Amino acid sequence: MDTTMNALATAPRETGHAARLRIRAGQFRKPTAGMAPGYVQANLAILPKALAADFHRFCHLNPKPCPLLAASEPGDPRLPALGADLDIRTDIPRYRVWRHGELVDEVTDLKGVWRDDLVSFALGCSFSFEEALIENGLELRHQTCDSNVPMYRTNIACAPAGPFHGPMVVSMRPFRAADAIRAIQVTSRFPSVHGAPVHLGMPGQIGITDIAKPDYGDAVPVRDDEFPVFWACGVTPQSVIATVKPEFSITHAPGYMLVTDQLNARLAVF
Amino acid sequence: MDTTMNALATAPRETGHAARLRIRAGQFRKPTAGMAPGYVQANLAILPKALAADFHRFCHLNPKPCPLLAASEPGDPRLPALGADLDIRTDIPRYRVWRHGELVDEVTDLKGVWRDDLVSFALGCSFSFEEALIENGLELRHQTCDSNVPMYRTNIACAPAGPFHGPMVVSMRPFRAADAIRAIQVTSRFPSVHGAPVHLGMPGQIGITDIAKPDYGDAVPVRDDEFPVFWACGVTPQSVIATVKPEFSITHAPGYMLVTDQLNARLAVF
Repeated sequence: MDTTMNALATAPRETGHAARLRIRAGQFRKPTAGMAPGYVQANLAILPKALAADFHRFCHLNPKPCPLLAASEPGDPRLPALGADLDIRTDIPRYRVWRHGELVDEVTDLKGVWRDDLVSFALGCSFSFEEALIENGLELRHQTCDSNVPMYRTNIACAPAGPFHGPMVVSMRPFRAADAIRAIQVTSRFPSVHGAPVHLGMPGQIGITDIAKPDYGDAVPVRDDEFPVFWACGVTPQSVIATVKPEFSITHAPGYMLVTDQLNARLAVF
Repeated sequence: MDTTMNALATAPRETGHAARLRIRAGQFRKPTAGMAPGYVQANLAILPKALAADFHRFCHLNPKPCPLLAASEPGDPRLPALGADLDIRTDIPRYRVWRHGELVDEVTDLKGVWRDDLVSFALGCSFSFEEALIENGLELRHQTCDSNVPMYRTNIACAPAGPFHGPMVVSMRPFRAADAIRAIQVTSRFPSVHGAPVHLGMPGQIGITDIAKPDYGDAVPVRDDEFPVFWACGVTPQSVIATVKPEFSITHAPGYMLVTDQLNARLAVF
């Protein structure tokens, strides 16, 4: 037996739990992309109980942009479905604190701002399906360009719930036809992390007037032999919450996600 | 209980076996589209044993255009995998007999031309996935137009096997983006009947110079807000066999398919 190969094959990968412990101990303060490969990372939204029921219903009505992985009891900082010891107050490297829709602080834990009426929502993130796309040998253009994925506000209205309403935001990845077909197959397996694309080609059909001018993230080149392929995006709930201007809310800082104990592979429905 | 509704719900549908018995008895001589809804219909190719091994390998190498459902023993007219009592000599309403690549006869049974060295190949047919597309509420443009599906020779070379070689033929169905995505999902479930599309949009990329001029079948309109979506087509093996010009071969007549005992729903892989 080749012991070198054997050592490589059995080299330990960091688990989601181990990554979270490093974050909780203040030993990791960077964006979480690439951390604990194979483990689900999630978007975070924390709202007062007074708004939580409407937001929960909004997620249920709009599962493609707002795929809800877990929601907490009011005041309870745990999300045991995503990690037995998970504490939402300490397990994310960087948070944003909002008052009346204004960003008022960025913090590395929530000990100073936690309240007994707060409800935490963890929402699926495109990292999970992007990992599957990469495993299938597909190029992610924004990674090739070392930039953020381009995102666009569309003319597709989310189904409203209470005060929550607004347009769906989509992310875009360009592919040639055969790769677009494969990308549709791969992401269809992951409905709990945005699932299949909502559109491809013809950006004007969903209200995007200039593919070179994303509303969030960075533009990437779309070659003449490629289609832009559009997925519902986790920026949608953030943008919807921003329009409601809650008296108090908390989100993760962009790129600083909640690392969970769930395996991406286990999200696949077939 | 509403007995009218109950009667409708339990109204007997013709089985594949019953349809085949009508054909065998000479009571049905028309194209088989719409016969025995829910049951798999198949393309037929019959070749002398001397060519059968190469053709079998060709199908294995090109599963999207040539999805092999069953192959017989030499000289054996049965295909028990597709129907316990199936007799390939009598169970198709119309056959074509070929000598050295020339169509020499159309017959309603093979009793006069059967030989002890003939091997039968039953190949999956797009009727199966079209049934699934219709069940999903998708429009098939060629059905709306009451015409044959348009088919095109492409610049995609099949993998050769012995004398068998040639370009892949594709069928085309136009869809808007969201319906194209759904059609990809639906047909991905049916790899044994051509499976997912091989291409969409940009016909020139696969060597199609004029979408309005199909090589087989009839042109259908593709609207400005639609993509042409292309599936590998069962005309491919027929076109490949034609180039080899076997001293003797038999096929079904176009539209006059082999009706089997298999259920389309059972072909779905998930």
